[in-house]
Amino acid sequence: MSLNPRRTIDELKELRALTGDNSGAQRVAWTDTWLKAREWFDSKLKDLPVEHHYDAAGNNWVTLPGESEKALLLGGHLDSVPNGGWLDGCLNVLAALEVLRHFASKGKPPVTIRVVDWADEEGARFGRSLLGSSAFAGTHSIEADRNLTDKDGIRLEDAVKRCGYDFARFPDAVRERANAAAYIELHIEQGPVLESLGLPLGVVLGTKGVERHTITFHGQEAHSGSTPMAVRRDALAAAAKLALEIRAIASKHADAVCTMGSVRTFPGIVTAIVGRCETTLDQRDLSTAVLAQMLRDARIASERFAAEERCTVEWSRIWNIEPVPFHPDLIGLCEDAVNEIAGVSHRMPSGPLHDAAEVARAGIPAVMMFVQSLRGISHNRMEDTDEEHLALSVRAFDALASRVAQWILR
Amino acid sequence: MSLNPRRTIDELKELRALTGDNSGAQRVAWTDTWLKAREWFDSKLKDLPVEHHYDAAGNNWVTLPGESEKALLLGGHLDSVPNGGWLDGCLNVLAALEVLRHFASKGKPPVTIRVVDWADEEGARFGRSLLGSSAFAGTHSIEADRNLTDKDGIRLEDAVKRCGYDFARFPDAVRERANAAAYIELHIEQGPVLESLGLPLGVVLGTKGVERHTITFHGQEAHSGSTPMAVRRDALAAAAKLALEIRAIASKHADAVCTMGSVRTFPGIVTAIVGRCETTLDQRDLSTAVLAQMLRDARIASERFAAEERCTVEWSRIWNIEPVPFHPDLIGLCEDAVNEIAGVSHRMPSGPLHDAAEVARAGIPAVMMFVQSLRGISHNRMEDTDEEHLALSVRAFDALASRVAQWILR
Repeated sequence: MSLNPRRTIDELKELRALTGDNSGAQRVAWTDTWLKAREWFDSKLKDLPVEHHYDAAGNNWVTLPGESEKALLLGGHLDSVPNGGWLDGCLNVLAALEVLRHFASKGKPPVTIRVVDWADEEGARFGRSLLGSSAFAGTHSIEADRNLTDKDGIRLEDAVKRCGYDFARFPDAVRERANAAAYIELHIEQGPVLESLGLPLGVVLGTKGVERHTITFHGQEAHSGSTPMAVRRDALAAAAKLALEIRAIASKHADAVCTMGSVRTFPGIVTAIVGRCETTLDQRDLSTAVLAQMLRDARIASERFAAEERCTVEWSRIWNIEPVPFHPDLIGLCEDAVNEIAGVSHRMPSGPLHDAAEVARAGIPAVMMFVQSLRGISHNRMEDTDEEHLALSVRAFDALASRVAQWILR
Repeated sequence: MSLNPRRTIDELKELRALTGDNSGAQRVAWTDTWLKAREWFDSKLKDLPVEHHYDAAGNNWVTLPGESEKALLLGGHLDSVPNGGWLDGCLNVLAALEVLRHFASKGKPPVTIRVVDWADEEGARFGRSLLGSSAFAGTHSIEADRNLTDKDGIRLEDAVKRCGYDFARFPDAVRERANAAAYIELHIEQGPVLESLGLPLGVVLGTKGVERHTITFHGQEAHSGSTPMAVRRDALAAAAKLALEIRAIASKHADAVCTMGSVRTFPGIVTAIVGRCETTLDQRDLSTAVLAQMLRDARIASERFAAEERCTVEWSRIWNIEPVPFHPDLIGLCEDAVNEIAGVSHRMPSGPLHDAAEVARAGIPAVMMFVQSLRGISHNRMEDTDEEHLALSVRAFDALASRVAQWILR
């Protein structure tokens, strides 16, 4: 039986019909719709010569035994954000299933093939993304996460229990790392780069590190009518300067991005000068050194602008993560596979995080392949990719899997 | 009996004790505490040879008949914002009372002296400021105001009724304009100008006109991690440029002010580029031409910044009012009075609006005198003025009243 990318597209549509509505995909982790999606996926396995189980953290493992116990892992996640798109991330799980079928059709593969559907990649309900893959990687912090609640006050630990899992046993998921020799993941780009270059597929160099801060400027609230311009201590003016400066800071580095996504003004009324301005800054790059440089630059700039406006500034870290570079050998193999199928390739970092980053942090060689997104839209029902490109991506992902299987036996 | 500024200061403290709490003054119009303040004020009249009544709009009139029926009006408002200061605006009513006492002590004055306590200058509860004085001026719009509600859903018309007034009869307050020949008002500056110049008193040239708009920039919401800097359509960037440019626009004109008091970002999350940014702009100047020029400049700048950021921009007027210049003769008399008492004077516009603006709009010659505010703070329990300056202000206001009484008979 040959590889059938059309089947993957049909299965994506079948899943959309089963677990989406007019607002988009609704496969939010730890909900009934998500469980329905996983049950549907399991139904696809019944004619395959595979072993299948859920691990202690709710990751779904499908294993096709090979001549070697050394295992090639491939997969992603069926869960989605609320009102999500039809491709993020189920394309990776269903393409992986198609690749496994292709291996199975040719007899016992040279290495063991394991498809994984990670639990709760999105963190859409409890704000904790990469949950299942971090348990696998051994980076999951039970105590920090167990008291997270959703908007209805339901605790993550209880939502997990309702699905049949014991939060305290999540660390047991590390057992699945036995014999894991490599991990590959296919994902839609979720950005506009490949489309703007007119390319269907890209090779992902790693996931960017992230520095995320709240930056608050303190000035002096005062009456907009009675306070002359020259004596104002306008916290918004300092924040506005920083909003513009972060673009200059990012532009010194090829793929770096800096974003001010939120500005809040206090008292925030038309007749008062802003006494306090709370902003958020999100900085990303694939290089640890660049990320540190951009953070330093932003801090120095914020202090300069505060001084210019006779304000003070205060920084508070929301979250950060180191860059996770993928394995150089696997990057090369991915480029070969993309070149073979699409005739042209492009190397690029991933701004969004993915389960592959957690797997790589566990020391397992990993790489990702991107397929073009239309208009760069994701986490939205408008998310889309040309079907021709989806088919190409399944073929290229299959070509990558074959190469990596050989590489494991090198 | 000679003028006794010390008594005015004692009465201000008495009123503070009666109608304030640890958070500040609580004389919000149409509340029980406000009625208590007015009752207290009325109790101060019992030994004076005055006629006293409330007009149809709730303005309180105290009349000391003079040789001429032509009347000098002087006053202000006892109402305050919630958690307000101890001087805004009751200083004006109590100083006016002291001036009336001084006239009364000297026998029948040459002109009729009328002290007025305007109803609901602040508009703190229903958002409609200068309510009583606009009824007097004939500029009050009953239909636009009657359905205003406070934060508990109580209608202005009902709150007024509870205090004994019929909203439909508000226009009858114009009858009080009979024989009105001039209006003078003393107020704390509510800004930092006199303090920065080291001056106790100032002469007010008029109240600035105001242009107040909402300006919304529309860009494209996108993922902060996957969207390269070069392809972004960041609505916040356009707004940040305008926040800085309005200062350059104001600085072309001596006393003009432009303020961006509120910025709201949508979706307003750390991981998304701002797709929509709503800002407010408040522009003020004493010159109609300058005000129009600043509005044009801001519009042109906003369109330029929107184009630079590949965004669009949309303007919506919140409110506007023309500048109200005070009477040139009365400005001169006010300057003479301030120079006599303080030895030095300063001419300045008022950024905040005052009841005097409504009186002037009705064609009655008017002027205001400012007394220094400490640290420019008002509408706050920290609002304060040196007692020495308060005493000077009562003396200068009395000197102004004598001069204006003579001017009326010119």
